This record gives sequence, C-alpha cells and structure tokens, in this order.
Amino acid sequence: MLNQKITIAVDVMSGDKGLAELLPAVISTVKEHDQLTVIAVGQQEQLKAHIGNHPMVTSGRIIIHHASEVVAMDEQPQSALKNKKDSSMRVAINLVKNGQAMACVSAGNTGALMATARFVLKTMPGIDRPAICTVLPSIRSPYKHVHMLDLGANVDEEPKHLQQFAMMGSLIATAVDKNENPKVALLNIGSEAIKGNSLVRETAKLLQNTDVNYIGFVEGDGIFFDDVDVVVCDGFSGNVALKTLEGSCKLVAKYLEASYKQNIFTKMAALISKPVLRSLKSKVDPRNYNGASLLGLRGIVVKSHGNADRISFANAINIAIKLADQDVVGKIEKQFSVEDGITSDSEQVKG
Amino acid sequence: MLNQKITIAVDVMSGDKGLAELLPAVISTVKEHDQLTVIAVGQQEQLKAHIGNHPMVTSGRIIIHHASEVVAMDEQPQSALKNKKDSSMRVAINLVKNGQAMACVSAGNTGALMATARFVLKTMPGIDRPAICTVLPSIRSPYKHVHMLDLGANVDEEPKHLQQFAMMGSLIATAVDKNENPKVALLNIGSEAIKGNSLVRETAKLLQNTDVNYIGFVEGDGIFFDDVDVVVCDGFSGNVALKTLEGSCKLVAKYLEASYKQNIFTKMAALISKPVLRSLKSKVDPRNYNGASLLGLRGIVVKSHGNADRISFANAINIAIKLADQDVVGKIEKQFSVEDGITSDSEQVKG
Repeated sequence: MLNQKITIAVDVMSGDKGLAELLPAVISTVKEHDQLTVIAVGQQEQLKAHIGNHPMVTSGRIIIHHASEVVAMDEQPQSALKNKKDSSMRVAINLVKNGQAMACVSAGNTGALMATARFVLKTMPGIDRPAICTVLPSIRSPYKHVHMLDLGANVDEEPKHLQQFAMMGSLIATAVDKNENPKVALLNIGSEAIKGNSLVRETAKLLQNTDVNYIGFVEGDGIFFDDVDVVVCDGFSGNVALKTLEGSCKLVAKYLEASYKQNIFTKMAALISKPVLRSLKSKVDPRNYNGASLLGLRGIVVKSHGNADRISFANAINIAIKLADQDVVGKIEKQFSVEDGITSDSEQVKG
Repeated sequence: MLNQKITIAVDVMSGDKGLAELLPAVISTVKEHDQLTVIAVGQQEQLKAHIGNHPMVTSGRIIIHHASEVVAMDEQPQSALKNKKDSSMRVAINLVKNGQAMACVSAGNTGALMATARFVLKTMPGIDRPAICTVLPSIRSPYKHVHMLDLGANVDEEPKHLQQFAMMGSLIATAVDKNENPKVALLNIGSEAIKGNSLVRETAKLLQNTDVNYIGFVEGDGIFFDDVDVVVCDGFSGNVALKTLEGSCKLVAKYLEASYKQNIFTKMAALISKPVLRSLKSKVDPRNYNGASLLGLRGIVVKSHGNADRISFANAINIAIKLADQDVVGKIEKQFSVEDGITSDSEQVKG
C-alpha cells in the first residue's frame, strides 16, 4: 500500500529489450498499485501503436509522453548530453526536475544516465558526488538484503565522498526497510584496523565522528554473511564486487547444468530437482535485485540493467515507487542540511 | 612426472587445523611424487610422536626439521618478524634462502608470511613489491583456470607495480600451463578505454609498451567467462573479487541446501541428486584452488588457506612442486634482468 498518489516517469525506449519487454512491466506495476500513475516516455507513434488502446492508457493511469530520440547503449555520456536533448532518458529526468514526476526509471547506459541526471537535477547541497546504490542478497540480515554503494558511479574517491555515501546509504536503509539504526560497514580486505588502503583507513576515522551507526570493516564474503545493513565502498571495488557476484552465480549455474547433464541418472535427478532448481534460480536471479538508485541528486533516478526483461524492469520501477513514497530525497536533503561535520566541494566553492 | 629431484620445506605447525590435517597432506604428496623430498618443519617432539616411525620418515623422504615456535594466526606481521625467529614459518623460509629447499609452503597468516618471506628472501631485482597470485576457475580458458594477481599483498599500488605483476603473471601462466603466449588483462569496471580509475588507465598505457600479450580490460564477471589467462589488479580490488567469489559460492550453496530441505519431495530430490551435488561441490570447492604464490621474491613461497584440510593443503604443496620444477623464480629473474622498460624502486635507490 502506498502512502500517497505517486507519479513515475519511465524511459521505455532505452535498454536492450525495447518496448516489448518494458511496456508490460509498466502495465503490471500500474495494475499492482492503485495510486500509481506512470508517464511512459518515448516515441509517440510507437507507443500509441503498442498500447494506445490499452485500458490503462485510455483511463489515464499510463500517460504517453513524446520524446523523439533515444540514447544508444554504447553512446558516450558527453555525446548523449550534448546531442540528445530530446531523448527518452533526458525527457524522463526533466519530468522529475519540473515536478511532474516524483521519480524516473531508465534501462539506458549508466554513464549517460548518470551524466544527464547530474546535469539536469544537480547534486544536493552537501553532496559532492552521487553514488549508485543497490541491494544485494544477505543471509544474515533480517531484511534478506544489504544496501551497497558506490557501485561504479565514481572512481578515485576521497574519504569525504565515502563518508557521504555512508550517510546516504544509512538513510536509504531506513527508508526502504524501516530500519531505524542500520549498521554501516566499510568494505575492506581484512577486518583489522591496520589493514586496507589509505582511502579506507581515512574513511574509517571520519565515520567514527558521524551519526552513522558505523560498525567497522567487512570483507567481500561479509557482504552476504555479516551482520550489516549497508556496505560502503569506492565505485571501483564496488563494481568489481557486484560483477564478481554476478559472474560467480553464473559460474555455479553453468557447473550445476553440466553436472546434471553427465549421464542418464543425473538427467533424471535434474528432472526431479526441477522445483528446487527453480526456487534456487529465483533466489540468485539478478533480475530480482534489479534497480539501482543514483543517490545524492535532487530527485529520484533508478537505473535498471540494460538487458532487463519485464519482471526485472518491474522490479526497478517498484524501487522508484518505494523511494518516492518514502521521500528518500527529502530525507537525505534534510540530513545533510543539519549535518555540521561535512564540508562538500560545493560549499567550499561557495564559501 | 617431475623433471628433477625436488625438495620442499613445509611449515606443518601454522594454520587452523594443525598436524592432524597437515601431516597427511605431506605424506600423500610424497607418495604421489617419486622424486620429492619434504622437509617437515615444526616442533620435533610433536612431529616425532606423530610420524617418527612412518616409513616415509625412516626412509628419509620426509625429513623432520625442528623449529621451536609457531606464529599465531592473528599475530601482527612485525611482531612475528621480531619475536619469532625460530618459528616453523621462518625456518621453512630460511631453508629456501640457504638452498636446502627449492620452495616452501605455509598455512600461516598471510601478513606474517609475506613480511617474513620478504625480509628473509628479499624481492628480485626489478621488482618493487611481491604479489599474491592464485588460480581461479574459468569457463572459457582451455586450462580451466585463470591466474589472478595481486590478491591482497599490496594496497595503494602505482602503475609500475601493476606492470610488474602483469609480467610475473604472464611468466607463471607459461610455467604452470605451458601456455607460450598467455593473454593478460587488467581488471576494470568497464571495457571501454575511458573507463576505470587513474591506476588502471595509466597501467594500460604502460602495458602497451611491454612484451606482455596485453589484451585490454575485463570486468568482475569476465574473470570467469572471458578469453583471458592472467588477470592483473591492485591488491585491494583483487582481494575484494576473491572474497566475493568465495562468498557468492557459499551463498548459492546455502540457498541450494535450503531449497532441497523445503519438503519431502525436495528432500527426495536431494537424495537422488547426491552425485550431481558432489560433483558441483568439488568444482567450486575453494580447496581445489588452494595455494597462492607469493611472486617477486628470490625464492618460491606458497601460501595455503589457514583452514586448509589435508586435501586442500596437498593442493598447495603441489603448486609449490610445480613452481619449483618449472623454475618459475629463475624465469622471472631472467625476464626482469633483460627488461629495459622497467625501473624499480630498488634500481632507483641503487642508481
């Protein structure tokens, strides 16, 4: 149940799968939430041809909003920013900027989405760099997931950036999970204080002097097994961890498949194990974790995997809905406006 | 079949499991290789009590070598270096230093092992920092594995360090796999040249001017799926990737276990799938990948997982045997002595 009427702008043109997968996701989410309106942004003729007569469109729950261009999946961020001012991605972000939508979702390329969102929406006061945040599976957590950031929006961060990520991550865990005191850890390569690179060691010192419930270090395997709600890291390591997780799950799946194909007995075992394997698949299916938030902007932007199908894309839309309903951006803004210990680049420039 | 008589020094006191697991590993490896002699380093009375009358000892294939101390698993490297001069770890390394053994193996703590090995053996000319290198599973590779370094010996590396790692990794792939032209890639967060942090971008430039067969970037999932033989990265990201891989496999195993326990039918399926699950387990079992080389030292040092059991520890001993038999250290030394493009800190100091 939503707390209020929510309007989400969805870029239905970007991504690898196209309208055939993204529109069904829009329709299913609108059906799921009574108070939801989706503005579907894309080429008007194509959209009309696909869903012009759909009851959700004729009833006004899905609004078709024209955008003449599409950002290509391999397009350079600067080129998209300069040359695609009427792209579905940019128009969706514009709708957030001018208040017509409370959040937007796109399966477009991460670089272009981040650059455009940053250019159009700007970062919040007190935040130097936006971060990409998503949930990953966790065995230990009562919420069955852990929030992790940054996952690749940035490289070459400084300790104050990670400090800001920790504060934002803590707020998102509270908003999404209603977890009042989320445990925040730094990703490191050992749990002792002397270990780690200079970035991690300096950040740890900063975090001891903030409101964040900082509990220390976790290692790569600790993401899934430690008692922690938010894992903070630089964008390079975060992206390495995320992609390694995806690769490892795919690796185990390949091995399992091969093992079940060995001979007639194992093939029989595979048949009998079908429900088990289906349940396993859904648990490690990255589609169920699809939807990363670009945190630190003056507006909610959710990035979906480029190759998201309808199930996966619906998951990303649902994350945008949750963040909008919980007013995560407002909460982050409020926190950073009362925070004393933080000096951002923007403040330094202003000061 | 070994090319020659090989003597390996094995620290049988360090690690979590103790003599009860480490000695059987020593015995099984000696049995496996006719030309192998193992110097088992540890407290003489304990060793004698365990294997004093074993035919491999009485025949001289296993030589008991006394060391009065043991480095604790949580001992600080500097403390081990200063206060444990007669530790099994240090004595095993000394045996390599003075030529009595061609390689040594220890399941002791990584920090102490690296610090001691570096202090006793020194780094090779042309190498600034040793790196930890191990094999990880690979789907694409004809060798079924990929060599990855550094996995945590270093933090805050500079491009020239990664360049040296690339050269060493290339040589180890040639020695271990008889792969004459191993493909070397840099771990990155995107495959385009503009992506990545400054370390990776600068290293890529350096690698284009070396003999190494540098093929570009791989992402975290590419470790297991791309057509690459050696993955080079800084110790922080490498350790994050390694631990994330371990954690992910453990996560999938937990989910699979839970799925098979759901009800009577899934429990039956589990029973029938036992051979399949056993085969899967052995494929992703980190024990089968146990044994990381500390590369760049004037001697072969192999680090085993601290919690290695007999199977796992035997694997680490076998890696040491392979590296000794292939004279990897000699080959690295030769390569670096003919290399012009490399300037190490030590050379700078000398110059």
